[in-house]
Amino acid sequence: MSKNLTLDAAELTVELGERSYPIWIGSGLLGRIGEAFQMRSIPTRSPIVIITDDHVAPLYLERTEAALREAGYQVSSFVVAAGESSKSLQVYEQCITAALDAGCDRHSSIVALGGGVVGDLAGYVAATYMRGIRFIQVPTTILAHDSSVGGKVAVNHPFAKNIIGAFHQPEMVLYDTATLLTLPDREVRAGLAEMIKHGLIWDEEFTAWCEAQAERLLAKDEEALTYGLLKGCAIKAQVVSQDEREHDLRAILNLGHTIGHALEAVAGYGELLHGEAISIGMVGSARLAERLGEDKQIAVRTEAILTKYGLPVAVPQHMNSDDIIQAMMHDKKFKEGHTVFIVPTAIGHVEIRKDVPVSLVRDIIEELKGEKA
Amino acid sequence: MSKNLTLDAAELTVELGERSYPIWIGSGLLGRIGEAFQMRSIPTRSPIVIITDDHVAPLYLERTEAALREAGYQVSSFVVAAGESSKSLQVYEQCITAALDAGCDRHSSIVALGGGVVGDLAGYVAATYMRGIRFIQVPTTILAHDSSVGGKVAVNHPFAKNIIGAFHQPEMVLYDTATLLTLPDREVRAGLAEMIKHGLIWDEEFTAWCEAQAERLLAKDEEALTYGLLKGCAIKAQVVSQDEREHDLRAILNLGHTIGHALEAVAGYGELLHGEAISIGMVGSARLAERLGEDKQIAVRTEAILTKYGLPVAVPQHMNSDDIIQAMMHDKKFKEGHTVFIVPTAIGHVEIRKDVPVSLVRDIIEELKGEKA
Repeated sequence: MSKNLTLDAAELTVELGERSYPIWIGSGLLGRIGEAFQMRSIPTRSPIVIITDDHVAPLYLERTEAALREAGYQVSSFVVAAGESSKSLQVYEQCITAALDAGCDRHSSIVALGGGVVGDLAGYVAATYMRGIRFIQVPTTILAHDSSVGGKVAVNHPFAKNIIGAFHQPEMVLYDTATLLTLPDREVRAGLAEMIKHGLIWDEEFTAWCEAQAERLLAKDEEALTYGLLKGCAIKAQVVSQDEREHDLRAILNLGHTIGHALEAVAGYGELLHGEAISIGMVGSARLAERLGEDKQIAVRTEAILTKYGLPVAVPQHMNSDDIIQAMMHDKKFKEGHTVFIVPTAIGHVEIRKDVPVSLVRDIIEELKGEKA
Repeated sequence: MSKNLTLDAAELTVELGERSYPIWIGSGLLGRIGEAFQMRSIPTRSPIVIITDDHVAPLYLERTEAALREAGYQVSSFVVAAGESSKSLQVYEQCITAALDAGCDRHSSIVALGGGVVGDLAGYVAATYMRGIRFIQVPTTILAHDSSVGGKVAVNHPFAKNIIGAFHQPEMVLYDTATLLTLPDREVRAGLAEMIKHGLIWDEEFTAWCEAQAERLLAKDEEALTYGLLKGCAIKAQVVSQDEREHDLRAILNLGHTIGHALEAVAGYGELLHGEAISIGMVGSARLAERLGEDKQIAVRTEAILTKYGLPVAVPQHMNSDDIIQAMMHDKKFKEGHTVFIVPTAIGHVEIRKDVPVSLVRDIIEELKGEKA
């Protein structure tokens, strides 16, 4: 029960005053989740509910439940369908019902075992059940290293993604790199796109490391993954610590996301993974930077590293430029002919530009369509 | 637009660091809501949605909208059915849809125009729309002076009241005492029960004032109401300022609520208003105090003041004691034979007793049933 125990894993603290929390990353941590709970002094008296999806449950649920029970916790679970459709108010209500059925009280914990969808959904359940209970993130994808730091949790409304949500920091993040070994290669690449993004916005040295370690990361080398995830989480944690509720600085995390979200909206279902869309978006932002007078080498190097990871760097030919621009139109400033863009000014540094002409964005989209996909 | 303007109303600040906010109380304030918005520097560019119910809308919605429009705001409204049934996830989702339809963004405001149900619902909409936007409370009942301070917002799950919620402090509370003049007498009395409670837990002098001013308050004298509401809000604000997220002290606000909630659960629909139930509960707590060795005069005076306000002080004869005890059973400690109770130790002072025997609670319930209702 002592807090002096260590999990013998890579550890990072997200500094948020009284809401600070640890991230542990290492191979085989899932089997030690009970110890981790004890280290955080989570009481055994109150029930715990694990929320996961039907892809992850067959692989890791039993092991997670067993490790918690061994440490004396009462555990139940709720399995949702894999995929974005589970981030609905209907599934959310089912999760709340499951927590009620389990007898959860104000000292209970919700565990998110899975990727970004499960993290967002389970986090929102934890944020709102009895006005907020403990939330533990157990990410099983590389992409989730991004969403597991920062405390943004949400579900979708039929008309708008992530419109219903909260800021709710986890009690801890437990990242078992062994769970990443079962990921399909395409998801590995797409997940690494967010890791590369963290280098591009904040840390030239980490970007160079990502360039050098592409082969090991793509081969899911656990040592390389541990370092890369730790570094990616650390960068995001630094940004979030300075701007927890997204007033200003935090926007830099959206490098590549303006174009990326628009591509996701226009693409057919399953055509582009999130990481793939922001890969194209990051190339777009770097090209935009060049047009705004920044060094051409930023775009060249950005494109080279993403290509090295087998990520797409061009807009699919069949997509209509007008549709893409239209999909960005929810931004009010856009309508006035200008828009806000996160633009690199060097590798490892970005700026928030509030005066980017929409016509220039259109040119870039056209240019990216001209390339071979 | 200056913050130096005053509304020429009674004013109180709820001290919560960067979440501090003003409460303005006075006659005719509804017509000055636009000015109040300007004083709080709320931008005119982002749409505002008023959430109200079908009892309040015919009386006050048009005036509220007009006052906001006059000050340059874009306003729309969403009217829900009056009553607890509107605190559902379904109605909540309709409110979110209304906010989306209105084009609400992160700088928008949600206005709660109504009593406690509307305040809880609209507050929860504001707490979760885009992870939290501005929330303005415009209470139109006396009871709502209690719920409008403290930041607790929630909706119900079919199996449990207020189980889905958040802490979300309002941007301001605007209390127009003229809206109270249309309240039915029974609701006035029930609302005043919470005001009396605030005296009983915190302030002997205010209790004496309530004893002396019963006639004026029951006659809805606006000057008396202004003072009483201000004082009631001030007491709640002091407690909440010291314990925003209900870790300990805040529990004293629940004087009379353990028995009161159980009576509400057992009563038929519409039989007991919330204020009536806690009136009986407060008498129960004072009797309990007497059995635990406190001065008998506490119970005598508590009962006398509530009787003076025409509030019930006995459990209705037809209610079954077992049912009432059963309704308290969700409290885990209860099962072990003891329970937590807020108990007065003097007029204006209460203590949290964690060791009250359930058998004693049962005795008190029986005793309260013996009285004339």
